[in-house]
Amino acid sequence: MQTRFVMINTSHAGNVGATARAMKVMGFDDLVLVAPRWANVLRREETIQRASGALDVLAQARIVETLDQALGGMTHVFATAMTPRDFGPPTMSPRDCFTRLTSGSPLVRASDPDAQAQVAEAPHGVAFLFGSERFGMRNEDVYRCHAALQIPTNPDFGSLNLGAAVQVIAYEWRQALAGYALQSPAVAPRAADAQELAGLLAHWEKALVAIDYLDPGAPKKLMPRLNQLFNRAAVTQEEVNILRGVAKAVLRTAARARG
Amino acid sequence: MQTRFVMINTSHAGNVGATARAMKVMGFDDLVLVAPRWANVLRREETIQRASGALDVLAQARIVETLDQALGGMTHVFATAMTPRDFGPPTMSPRDCFTRLTSGSPLVRASDPDAQAQVAEAPHGVAFLFGSERFGMRNEDVYRCHAALQIPTNPDFGSLNLGAAVQVIAYEWRQALAGYALQSPAVAPRAADAQELAGLLAHWEKALVAIDYLDPGAPKKLMPRLNQLFNRAAVTQEEVNILRGVAKAVLRTAARARG
Repeated sequence: MQTRFVMINTSHAGNVGATARAMKVMGFDDLVLVAPRWANVLRREETIQRASGALDVLAQARIVETLDQALGGMTHVFATAMTPRDFGPPTMSPRDCFTRLTSGSPLVRASDPDAQAQVAEAPHGVAFLFGSERFGMRNEDVYRCHAALQIPTNPDFGSLNLGAAVQVIAYEWRQALAGYALQSPAVAPRAADAQELAGLLAHWEKALVAIDYLDPGAPKKLMPRLNQLFNRAAVTQEEVNILRGVAKAVLRTAARARG
Repeated sequence: MQTRFVMINTSHAGNVGATARAMKVMGFDDLVLVAPRWANVLRREETIQRASGALDVLAQARIVETLDQALGGMTHVFATAMTPRDFGPPTMSPRDCFTRLTSGSPLVRASDPDAQAQVAEAPHGVAFLFGSERFGMRNEDVYRCHAALQIPTNPDFGSLNLGAAVQVIAYEWRQALAGYALQSPAVAPRAADAQELAGLLAHWEKALVAIDYLDPGAPKKLMPRLNQLFNRAAVTQEEVNILRGVAKAVLRTAARARG
């Protein structure tokens, strides 16, 4: 699915750079600037600094005069506007909106339940619009959108930085598109099974008796407690080996002490 | 639940400001800096500029010498490290980790299914650790954490800005803590019901016949098509009124034309 980020009347070069970086980190590269404050914003020092390596996104970014020129190929257009507008599109959280969009649910619940089935096909091109730092988005620009995405924020302080807003939207959209895999360490530890754990506990019991910490005649609940702790910790096979090594060394030392 | 953001060896003042803003936007205010590059970082111009109003977070932030001093009261400590470490804590996505944490599931699946029930109680204090811009987190600091949170990123470009990473973590954690409500427009539009829609379609049918667009003798599938379109659009009551107004004006004009 084609994904485009559109910045309208952006005034801070740093935010353009931050946006390029935020997009690339989430695997997006289609950036369009509508009438930015600086005509040379893509080449300004602050832009390049904040882009921090996402220079290919800047290199292929387009600058256009009007929002219309930015929206070719986009079937679904989303405003990012903190202030809901009367008569505007529905206000939705990014997560809710993207879940519907990728699952083929209608963005708005139709009154007729049968209408649920008549969903338009999946979106071909999705554009996210971001207004200027000082004034946000114009009503006219919001009105043409399918939904206004509102990142849920502190009711007393909703002042989200423009680059940070792009990062959250790009992150949520990438997650909705099935996301990226985590990089795992080379060797994933294997959990010990219940039999290995029982062997460990028997070994420790012997060691604890040998150092007179556990009285076999009055064991209280020591071993069940340790069992619970190891269960909760979900010990790995390697850790079982370490802990049995400890028990072995304890037993050896105790034998020497009895000397 | 107490939530703390801990920045270790941070070198860019702008990132400290951006972090304060990102935290406040998501309703968090407990910031601790461990051995930052600049001792006066909380009062630097760039910090204050990028904090953009989150000055209370900066004002109550603490600067300490060691990570130990930053972790009082924290029962669960999370690294944010892009590179997984062998022998380190499990690597998890923020969403997966936070879902488990808030639902009381163990962070790691125990081998013994019974152990699932023996979950420690909900966390009292949660700390998120962020390493330096250039070197990330030291192994020793990662090893003491309950999990390493990895924001899933483009495998070819995982260079997430520090402030952006804080924003994503703060956002996800706030969402996991049940989030904030969206601000809704003053008047939520009410969806038209099927009866109102049928009235609209009858009105339009009459109008379309009057202007010779619809031939009652060979209606083809025009009305069902319009019905589907209106269903899919989930028209509101107000829109039904508008569209019936259009039909009325069409009928009036057609009557005059027949004049």
